[in-house]
Amino acid sequence: MTKPLILIANDDGVDAKGIAALIEMVKPYGRLVVVAPEVSNSGMSHALTFEQPLRLRMVSKSDDISIYACNGTPVDCVKLAMSQVVSDKPTLLVSGINHGSNSSISVLYSGTLAAAAEGSLYEIPSIGFSLLDSSRDADFSASVHYGRMIVEKVLKDSFHPRTYLNINIPKLSIEEIKGVQLCRQTDGTYREEYEKRIDPHGKEYYWLTGTYINNEPDATDTDEYFLSQGYITVVPVHPDMTAYDELEKMKKVWGVAM
Amino acid sequence: MTKPLILIANDDGVDAKGIAALIEMVKPYGRLVVVAPEVSNSGMSHALTFEQPLRLRMVSKSDDISIYACNGTPVDCVKLAMSQVVSDKPTLLVSGINHGSNSSISVLYSGTLAAAAEGSLYEIPSIGFSLLDSSRDADFSASVHYGRMIVEKVLKDSFHPRTYLNINIPKLSIEEIKGVQLCRQTDGTYREEYEKRIDPHGKEYYWLTGTYINNEPDATDTDEYFLSQGYITVVPVHPDMTAYDELEKMKKVWGVAM
Repeated sequence: MTKPLILIANDDGVDAKGIAALIEMVKPYGRLVVVAPEVSNSGMSHALTFEQPLRLRMVSKSDDISIYACNGTPVDCVKLAMSQVVSDKPTLLVSGINHGSNSSISVLYSGTLAAAAEGSLYEIPSIGFSLLDSSRDADFSASVHYGRMIVEKVLKDSFHPRTYLNINIPKLSIEEIKGVQLCRQTDGTYREEYEKRIDPHGKEYYWLTGTYINNEPDATDTDEYFLSQGYITVVPVHPDMTAYDELEKMKKVWGVAM
Repeated sequence: MTKPLILIANDDGVDAKGIAALIEMVKPYGRLVVVAPEVSNSGMSHALTFEQPLRLRMVSKSDDISIYACNGTPVDCVKLAMSQVVSDKPTLLVSGINHGSNSSISVLYSGTLAAAAEGSLYEIPSIGFSLLDSSRDADFSASVHYGRMIVEKVLKDSFHPRTYLNINIPKLSIEEIKGVQLCRQTDGTYREEYEKRIDPHGKEYYWLTGTYINNEPDATDTDEYFLSQGYITVVPVHPDMTAYDELEKMKKVWGVAM
């Protein structure tokens, strides 16, 4: 019997330690095809490249693992993989492991999660993994350990194919992690403070910095809450962004026709 | 009394015809601050620039309209405007008018909508406008006409500040447009076919093309449906992407703890 096909992407780039950890995590479960950005694409969200041509570079190939680098975004990587690299539909797509948190409102900005979202649009069960440690040399051993438990669960009891899982892992050891919690996305915002500098030619420029604000610090059912308590969080995410409650309210206030 | 402050962004770039039409649309209602990308940022989604410094260039300034160009993405434009350009909180943010549709799943990919989403994260009533005509020289006169009706409605009866409006306008004349419909996002997908070419040096490269697929062609309450019937569509959108139904199902299947 052919082993299941697992597609792998990330946003930190093909050389990141996190994607090596992800490969290690899922290697026992199938044949792997990796298509990842040539360079870091952190914060690229769901960006697509259509004004520039894309290239695919084969990094390495063995019986069970093929690795390609792409000059595009994480979403380009998934689309190009589906169109040009894989010959059958993957059983699973995993993205990451991101160096840094993707909880709460980061779902909008994250390239790691956008790759998983794109997988779900192809109706592939897709998971984005992120570790709450943004250092290049982060320790992914607990992520690999618990990630395997989750992947086994997903391979056994999957979820709605137009949903993907946003999984965040606290920066703790295997022993310190308390368990895994299914929960919802925290309502939060980044307040960006830009640092203004003057270049050697006297012109102003700005660096993005940013402070996360939790808009519901007292909630006990959110990803931010469970992460703070030492749990791995699993948020099922879907691409329907309609605000249904607001839609019903607006219909009453605006009237049906204008 | 000071006129309300209206912040304007887009993704087609500061020189696009669509943003000139948007300025014309909202000029009667306030003081305008425009911060738009230097060049086209179509399909940039919620991408953020944090590995490169950002620049702001003043394009023009009068009593009622200040226009700046930024070397970043649409979301960078909004964040930088909020941090460095405006001194008080805008009453309204408008983004667009996009040259081309942003209905259905385009909510994930669109830079125009990402700018509106970013406005909503600052709790500014925000609207993304898109015309179903992607030509550079598109005719925005119906968009300006109906856009003013909608802006007046929003200035009078606003909506939840963490929601934004995704407004699409069919490519029709003022007389042909049947009206305005509040509705939900269509479940749809792009299936990307890449066109593979060989460069003059013998190396392969790929151009993104793409075909839209409506996953619910028989639904009569979606933006795709109403656009096809000649209506302007208004979809309220929020940033909570949690799949609540799936969350409840998964809790039962997975158990609460692992």
